[in-house]
Amino acid sequence: MIKKRKTAYKKEEFRDLGFGSKVASQRQRLINRDGSFNVERTGQSFFERFSPYHYLVSISWLRFNAFVVCAYLVINILFAFLYMAFGIDHISAEHTFFFHDFLNSFFFSVQTFTTVGYGRLNPTGDIESFIAGIESLTGLMGFALATGLLYGRFSRPNAKIIYSKNAIIAPYKGINAFEFRIANARDNQLIEVDIQVMLSMNDKSKGREGKRIFHNLQLERAKVTFFSLTWTIVHPIDNESPLNGMTEKELKEADAEFLILLKAFDDTFSQTVHSRSSYKYNEVIWGASFKSVYLDSPVGVSTIDMRIIHEIEKTEI
Amino acid sequence: MIKKRKTAYKKEEFRDLGFGSKVASQRQRLINRDGSFNVERTGQSFFERFSPYHYLVSISWLRFNAFVVCAYLVINILFAFLYMAFGIDHISAEHTFFFHDFLNSFFFSVQTFTTVGYGRLNPTGDIESFIAGIESLTGLMGFALATGLLYGRFSRPNAKIIYSKNAIIAPYKGINAFEFRIANARDNQLIEVDIQVMLSMNDKSKGREGKRIFHNLQLERAKVTFFSLTWTIVHPIDNESPLNGMTEKELKEADAEFLILLKAFDDTFSQTVHSRSSYKYNEVIWGASFKSVYLDSPVGVSTIDMRIIHEIEKTEI
Amino acid sequence: MIKKRKTAYKKEEFRDLGFGSKVASQRQRLINRDGSFNVERTGQSFFERFSPYHYLVSISWLRFNAFVVCAYLVINILFAFLYMAFGIDHISAEHTFFFHDFLNSFFFSVQTFTTVGYGRLNPTGDIESFIAGIESLTGLMGFALATGLLYGRFSRPNAKIIYSKNAIIAPYKGINAFEFRIANARDNQLIEVDIQVMLSMNDKSKGREGKRIFHNLQLERAKVTFFSLTWTIVHPIDNESPLNGMTEKELKEADAEFLILLKAFDDTFSQTVHSRSSYKYNEVIWGASFKSVYLDSPVGVSTIDMRIIHEIEKTEI
Amino acid sequence: MIKKRKTAYKKEEFRDLGFGSKVASQRQRLINRDGSFNVERTGQSFFERFSPYHYLVSISWLRFNAFVVCAYLVINILFAFLYMAFGIDHISAEHTFFFHDFLNSFFFSVQTFTTVGYGRLNPTGDIESFIAGIESLTGLMGFALATGLLYGRFSRPNAKIIYSKNAIIAPYKGINAFEFRIANARDNQLIEVDIQVMLSMNDKSKGREGKRIFHNLQLERAKVTFFSLTWTIVHPIDNESPLNGMTEKELKEADAEFLILLKAFDDTFSQTVHSRSSYKYNEVIWGASFKSVYLDSPVGVSTIDMRIIHEIEKTEI
Repeated sequence: MIKKRKTAYKKEEFRDLGFGSKVASQRQRLINRDGSFNVERTGQSFFERFSPYHYLVSISWLRFNAFVVCAYLVINILFAFLYMAFGIDHISAEHTFFFHDFLNSFFFSVQTFTTVGYGRLNPTGDIESFIAGIESLTGLMGFALATGLLYGRFSRPNAKIIYSKNAIIAPYKGINAFEFRIANARDNQLIEVDIQVMLSMNDKSKGREGKRIFHNLQLERAKVTFFSLTWTIVHPIDNESPLNGMTEKELKEADAEFLILLKAFDDTFSQTVHSRSSYKYNEVIWGASFKSVYLDSPVGVSTIDMRIIHEIEKTEI
Repeated sequence: MIKKRKTAYKKEEFRDLGFGSKVASQRQRLINRDGSFNVERTGQSFFERFSPYHYLVSISWLRFNAFVVCAYLVINILFAFLYMAFGIDHISAEHTFFFHDFLNSFFFSVQTFTTVGYGRLNPTGDIESFIAGIESLTGLMGFALATGLLYGRFSRPNAKIIYSKNAIIAPYKGINAFEFRIANARDNQLIEVDIQVMLSMNDKSKGREGKRIFHNLQLERAKVTFFSLTWTIVHPIDNESPLNGMTEKELKEADAEFLILLKAFDDTFSQTVHSRSSYKYNEVIWGASFKSVYLDSPVGVSTIDMRIIHEIEKTEI
Repeated sequence: MIKKRKTAYKKEEFRDLGFGSKVASQRQRLINRDGSFNVERTGQSFFERFSPYHYLVSISWLRFNAFVVCAYLVINILFAFLYMAFGIDHISAEHTFFFHDFLNSFFFSVQTFTTVGYGRLNPTGDIESFIAGIESLTGLMGFALATGLLYGRFSRPNAKIIYSKNAIIAPYKGINAFEFRIANARDNQLIEVDIQVMLSMNDKSKGREGKRIFHNLQLERAKVTFFSLTWTIVHPIDNESPLNGMTEKELKEADAEFLILLKAFDDTFSQTVHSRSSYKYNEVIWGASFKSVYLDSPVGVSTIDMRIIHEIEKTEI
Repeated sequence: MIKKRKTAYKKEEFRDLGFGSKVASQRQRLINRDGSFNVERTGQSFFERFSPYHYLVSISWLRFNAFVVCAYLVINILFAFLYMAFGIDHISAEHTFFFHDFLNSFFFSVQTFTTVGYGRLNPTGDIESFIAGIESLTGLMGFALATGLLYGRFSRPNAKIIYSKNAIIAPYKGINAFEFRIANARDNQLIEVDIQVMLSMNDKSKGREGKRIFHNLQLERAKVTFFSLTWTIVHPIDNESPLNGMTEKELKEADAEFLILLKAFDDTFSQTVHSRSSYKYNEVIWGASFKSVYLDSPVGVSTIDMRIIHEIEKTEI
């Protein structure tokens, strides 16, 4: 299960790595703790980069529901005016004052759009019947989008991984190691979990000042078959590690950031899920080790206390 | 098709392996025979680890249907009270005693929520019409979740693999081998089937008492292209096997458990499916071999008797 | 793009290979030309191996539609009797003779089940209203399955690969080669296409009479990046090939069958698709080569005549 | 992260590569800039190669919507005639002149097909009720296809990759390199991006005139973990490159085309996406380098100007 460490640590080349090399000067993180990216683009119009599906799937539930309700109101108001324009008397016998006519039009529109069609409000004119036919088609197609998005959002595969608040530099098998701890916050199981850790630092090579350099960190174990509780990820700082010989101060000067990508198969979703996070140099604690999360369980199942995943204790290094 | 046995058997490192190392003392299995896990977590609130989608997809059909019917009743009762609050006389002409008014409200709500809208019960007041408009929207969106989940559950990719009741230790090519047998219980075909077997034992290394150690077992064949009937999985106990030289008694003392993960592509679902199981030391029979499952078929197609997949016969080892 | 031929041809081990080893006596093919399997199982009850989803996705469109229509009729007839049992006079004012009452009940049931709810037939009694509420819920949930299956069947990822009627043994680079030709019958593109060819023969080793042996055939090219027209798959019969030195008669005696599995990514479905087929020894033509399928096109796009994919011409070998 | 360059550049074999070898004479590109293919097939009937799902998913939104509206009109007109044939007086009390009867039939059909069912138009005869029952079933199943396709099209996974207008031949680490630049036009992130570049040229080997030869180009980096902004793909023209020693004129004579396939995981869609493009010899600029796309950002996030992804400046080579 341990990925063989045959290949030596490779220094990444200095061409663009997806998110540019020109980020040294800013002392900002590339990936936020929640996995979102710190990038910004200009020179593209809104419509060039806007994807309605991406937008409607990514926004919060509050915004999504507000969007659905607004679209529902706007479409029905438009159709209501259309029915009024062609004569409200072909829909409702009671012909009273303007606002009430509009309301009747609006309610007829709602009853058509949702295909509830009680029948008291009822198109008797041909034009109204035709518009109502268009509206019920619009309603069925429109609700296909709304309900598809609703269920798509609800069933969207995602992992809920808790990353320990801090990473640590701890003694490990005679040398030191960079370590952090993750936990599966869900009651489900993740299968065939892969993890990649990259170290991003300022390049100190001549002529490359102000540019970033990226290293892949070799892990003690980069893959587990089952992940249902916790996992401590260990990068041993051996001779080949880019961290070898570095001090806490040098890490700060290099504006180091550890980028993490986790990939797993979720058994409930039957799909691959991803999780991202990062540790900045100031989130790495030198000389510490993680507290055990296992409890003595009387009943004989593995018990774990998720609260103490973040807890560390001081250690000599 | 046989995975090359180039790499030597690797001893897994002693950091957490997804499901902790601190499970030796309990003599419980890690994975149940049906593939579920024996783990428990504390220190997280219900809402932190609850995922409604995972819950509604995983519960039994009985519970799911009960959930849908209850939600249906509760929502309609709520709306029924709302209609009564704003005057039942705007929905039904017959204004009788309280309980019958409530029933009429409830039936109107049902007819609105499901968009059936017969029309005898019919909102004549503006507020009732407005609430009915909200209810039919709620109904369409709510049924999107219910029907999406129903179909999602129905079409959820899963494999139905039968694992032989016992694993065996049998003579194999001059040495012994750990073997078990699986069958595809479905009429469909599985393609590109991969299997992994892990051995979990108590660690006897100094200072590691009470911890578990995990070994990947090398298989004679770890992958088949087609799997439509049965497959006997064979781990030869050669010099590199962690089972090499172990006795039945030692296996018991080590509280050994063989963890199995099967991965395949299901042609009907067009998706990857997984199956898990495990054998405890006391489910391994020493000195036995599996009976042939093939029948002499007169008609000329491969015939297999699925009942005798579990049957073994004693053998000298 | 050519898979390196580093690893020597490996003789498959004699344990079960998904579809058993005991098929030599029957002179039947393992995989039919259309990709279905020639296997049969006994000893399992119908309900153990039946999966409703697999069944409803796999049956023909005719059977599926018949199933939907029958279920629609049966459910509505059941509800119709239920309404009659509780008094047809609570649904329709016209109370005539039995059969017409039943028809009214049935039509009311249909109008409830489909949520069309015109309103002439209309539940006036409380019990009828309640049953109607249950029926419209049943209808919405039932149609979720029916429409989900309908769309699932319609959008099910599948490849339409045409396999040349015959495989050939043709001269190739000084030696001979086993070759067959495939074409993409669709207007779409397949990406990253992988192909595996296995040779299944009677085992002539001592003590293994009547058993099958399986060989992976090494291909000149086992993977192409784009597959939009045709591809000739070539297995060179070199010293390491299991076909090396075999004659047409020996191939017949060994009851040889060439099993084929193709895997690709379909750009339209955005999913992986599979295709299977096989050639029996008597579908292999010795000393032939495929005719070119390319036409001289005046307009400057690659033109291919799909009809002549099966055409071969005699060649000396 | 750099794919090791162990394997030497391999000359592709001269059998069909998915899109034939006989395309040299035409001076046309194999892949258009938008990723579509330049191939044509004959000898297959329309129905052999037509797949309704592929068609309806691939056509433009305008055509799809027109298709839905037409199908809606045609089905309702057919049912309208059916209702008229069995007597319009069983649907509407008002029995006027022919065209108005047809309109009433049509509107009744629409109200049945969409299950809106107001109830003024209402089947009173048994045959009309039965046809209406069939029509509402047809409507529910038909809308399942229409709405499934609508949402399937809307949520179809696709990448929007901008390829630089030109590829360049630029000095690189003492030698030259073939380079092009891509950008992610979307606000989302692509994960684990793989890229393949193939060079297609006329074969100048004896006896192979008029045929194409394909080379895989080795890349400085063929895979990135995160791709949110831009990436410059570099093929160093070293001794093993098929471009080694070639001049601009020779590239033209060989009718060279660089084929590109990009594969990535889209975090929003939770699915694998592909993108294709190509550069013809005349789109390759010799002696040029790309302008930096990074801006000096005051706010401290990586800022990129997407407009200048295509911009190059002359360089000595």
